[in-house]
Amino acid sequence: MPKHILSILVENQSGVLGRVTGLFSRRGYNIESLSVGVTENENLSRITVVVNGDDYILGQITKQLEKQVVVEKIIELGQETSVKRELMLIKVKTTEKNKMMIFETVNVFRAKIIDLSIDSLTIEITGTPDKVESFIELLKPYGILEIARTGLTGLERGSTTINN
Amino acid sequence: MPKHILSILVENQSGVLGRVTGLFSRRGYNIESLSVGVTENENLSRITVVVNGDDYILGQITKQLEKQVVVEKIIELGQETSVKRELMLIKVKTTEKNKMMIFETVNVFRAKIIDLSIDSLTIEITGTPDKVESFIELLKPYGILEIARTGLTGLERGSTTINN
Repeated sequence: MPKHILSILVENQSGVLGRVTGLFSRRGYNIESLSVGVTENENLSRITVVVNGDDYILGQITKQLEKQVVVEKIIELGQETSVKRELMLIKVKTTEKNKMMIFETVNVFRAKIIDLSIDSLTIEITGTPDKVESFIELLKPYGILEIARTGLTGLERGSTTINN
Repeated sequence: MPKHILSILVENQSGVLGRVTGLFSRRGYNIESLSVGVTENENLSRITVVVNGDDYILGQITKQLEKQVVVEKIIELGQETSVKRELMLIKVKTTEKNKMMIFETVNVFRAKIIDLSIDSLTIEITGTPDKVESFIELLKPYGILEIARTGLTGLERGSTTINN
């Protein structure tokens, strides 16, 4: 199934998120990731969703989204025409012995250690989903305690914006 | 109103996100930010929500969330006992004249330039919401074209996890 990344500008009010996600789930469309935050205009939030599924159904969902009063604008972020990033926090088990090797991996990936305990490390990393997945694979042998990912966010390349 | 950050472990299936956000919106509880991504276990997603509102009502919402079969675990991330980060992409207007000053601000904040055009720059920054807000304030005079934020994500400090 093709993957689509939608960027949706919505009014920042109670219930909007549920209405948007509801339009996808009612058609059995699973949302792979979702992130939402306020924009440069505090009355508007920007939702980025990654979905997998049929193009025709997605077209229908998009039309229904556009009809909602609370939806200001909706665009699809293209593979080549946009920059996309996600943030992950990952907690790994450590021992005196393997700690230096983990530090090295962190440096190679330009990640950051944001918490340290006797037997664990929490690392912050940003990048494309591919980079984040590679990082997880490299840390797996040490024992991953837990992961929190924000889901993808993105903007179009160049000076064009969602509004023009 | 006090701010609360909840970390919710849910089954990774269609409709779960709508059910969770619906429990908040039906009680008029506005979700300030929400991020969701898969975890170390691909059958589970982790939702981080930031909400503002009455403690009593939040207690009721939490109880209702815990009753949902699709909800595995729910914890509140404490101010001092957790690490919290968000990711922002911000696009700024540039001129030949002010570009160097923006580069300097980017360096001070350890942000990254991820796209460059003749008249604009797109910057990636991670940090606490306070840091992200300060960065926005510093860039405002140059002209902000658009912003995409992931919303907050977080993990408890030390080696404890959401599961223990």
